[in-house]
Amino acid sequence: MGATLRLTSDEALARLRSGLHDRADNFHAMYSSVLGGIVTDPALMVLPLDDHMVHRGHAVFDTAAIVGGMLYQLDPHLERLLRSAEMARIPLPSEPHQLRQIIIDTAAVSGQRNASVRYWLSAGPGGFGLSSRECVASSFYVMIFRPEPEPEHFYTEGVKLVTSSVPIKPPYFAKVKSNNYLPNALMLLEAKDRGADHGLFLDAQGYVAESSHMNVAFVNSDNVLCHPTFDAILTGITAKRMLHLARELVNSGDLEGIALRNVPVQEWRAAREILLLGSSLKVAPVVRWDDQPVGEGRPGPIARKLLAMWQADQNEGSDQLVPVPYAES
Amino acid sequence: MGATLRLTSDEALARLRSGLHDRADNFHAMYSSVLGGIVTDPALMVLPLDDHMVHRGHAVFDTAAIVGGMLYQLDPHLERLLRSAEMARIPLPSEPHQLRQIIIDTAAVSGQRNASVRYWLSAGPGGFGLSSRECVASSFYVMIFRPEPEPEHFYTEGVKLVTSSVPIKPPYFAKVKSNNYLPNALMLLEAKDRGADHGLFLDAQGYVAESSHMNVAFVNSDNVLCHPTFDAILTGITAKRMLHLARELVNSGDLEGIALRNVPVQEWRAAREILLLGSSLKVAPVVRWDDQPVGEGRPGPIARKLLAMWQADQNEGSDQLVPVPYAES
Repeated sequence: MGATLRLTSDEALARLRSGLHDRADNFHAMYSSVLGGIVTDPALMVLPLDDHMVHRGHAVFDTAAIVGGMLYQLDPHLERLLRSAEMARIPLPSEPHQLRQIIIDTAAVSGQRNASVRYWLSAGPGGFGLSSRECVASSFYVMIFRPEPEPEHFYTEGVKLVTSSVPIKPPYFAKVKSNNYLPNALMLLEAKDRGADHGLFLDAQGYVAESSHMNVAFVNSDNVLCHPTFDAILTGITAKRMLHLARELVNSGDLEGIALRNVPVQEWRAAREILLLGSSLKVAPVVRWDDQPVGEGRPGPIARKLLAMWQADQNEGSDQLVPVPYAES
Repeated sequence: MGATLRLTSDEALARLRSGLHDRADNFHAMYSSVLGGIVTDPALMVLPLDDHMVHRGHAVFDTAAIVGGMLYQLDPHLERLLRSAEMARIPLPSEPHQLRQIIIDTAAVSGQRNASVRYWLSAGPGGFGLSSRECVASSFYVMIFRPEPEPEHFYTEGVKLVTSSVPIKPPYFAKVKSNNYLPNALMLLEAKDRGADHGLFLDAQGYVAESSHMNVAFVNSDNVLCHPTFDAILTGITAKRMLHLARELVNSGDLEGIALRNVPVQEWRAAREILLLGSSLKVAPVVRWDDQPVGEGRPGPIARKLLAMWQADQNEGSDQLVPVPYAES
């Protein structure tokens, strides 16, 4: 026999716990349909290796947020999850209203007033084959966790963007929010290598498509806020909400209009402002792109105003908020 | 608080065990670098949800086999794993010879004389961000399991193939053996829906590329065995070994030659034989393709001869075999 240590079940469990170190502090509560309940012990925030989410990437996910004790935009994110599951041919393990309740319950158990809420639907465990037909049941996982905060300087100084050399996914797979994020992860690593903060996918026609895990929009020289169509990219829940909120900036005269259309790179190069839009960084101004300044090379007024409107919406946008039924409230 | 059950750590562990049911019989031994050892308790064949393999698909894998107590083609599969890891920017958690020893040790602990051996290198656990820079260390997992046997009628009656409507991955991502297998899984489901056994990816130029998790070759009307180049598809270890073994069929006059080139669909339509090549089904004859017969519509002589040569190679191909140091031997 070889030198690799053989562990008893008790030893393995102890190592699951001791191997967590500091990061366990960020993991507040997890629901697992495999366990049939919610755990708060980070050592048990695990899933079977044979879940097809793990070894075949046969899973979809979405992320909402708890802001001030309220779930913000839970329903649009959950609806997108269900659309993704349909595209990935993952049957629902429970009715949508039950999945929704599980998310709310897990948020409540976490006790967190401000946190990220991510949930996955997977083809489920069942073995190491390729076909999900072997899976015993699709699985549902919910995690309440503390996200890494976005750097403050993204908002005060702006974000540096580079056009990525990583190929974009085919449209079908760009539109389903699956956990097949290797291209996205590699794009982000490449951006950091090149001294930038984030990367940008162009599509096969040379149109600007999306960033690593966020959408991208720009204010053109006519002061129109332009966003690519959602035909070959992920339908950003945050982006769509921003485009909705931005109508107020048209009413106030800050913007001339809002357009949803695919625009070649050259027009983007003449942008007054470029904005990154996503649930993690909300709206962040891009000030450099491929080592050229964007607009005047500093954060612009539309980004600033949209961020303020977003913050107000998170706190007061009543139709976007679902209260979390904490035990002590 | 809601109705979703909250579990203690002991309850969660009991449910990990009780939820396995029959399939646990197929899981013989698992090594996990997160645990730092080998477990044989299927309830602990788990990994942390925050491993980037799980939620970002930032992992690569490969599969070898134990045949008659010997690891067959371990080294070519391990070398491909290391190439995949480099393309996916996953640093090695140990030296290659240590990874190799861990695989051998896990095989030994399993006690299995015939089984599949799959191993994954992952960016590792560290949180729910996108960038692998947050990961505490890359992780390595090895699983020894009983694969679902391939249907006997694949060999006696032949395989039905359909051209898939699922888009193929961009070449870079087709070449790295990552766990981003959602397209492959969807192709297989589509094939079954259409009454076939497997699907076929065409590339953007309309050339025949590969199947869901295997390569594809054909014998043309001049009796030349043709295989696509490996420029935009996975470099199949089994396919390459088959092409090596097939030289003997050129020497014996069964084949006129062997060619590695991309061939348009029309030429494939005139094939005498089409072969699927992969570590799970070895070599299987395709007898129908998109509801048209292939050649004479029955398994052909080249498929049959190659399968026999493969079986001999698995048992006697001395340079391809690594003995497993079982405890009792």
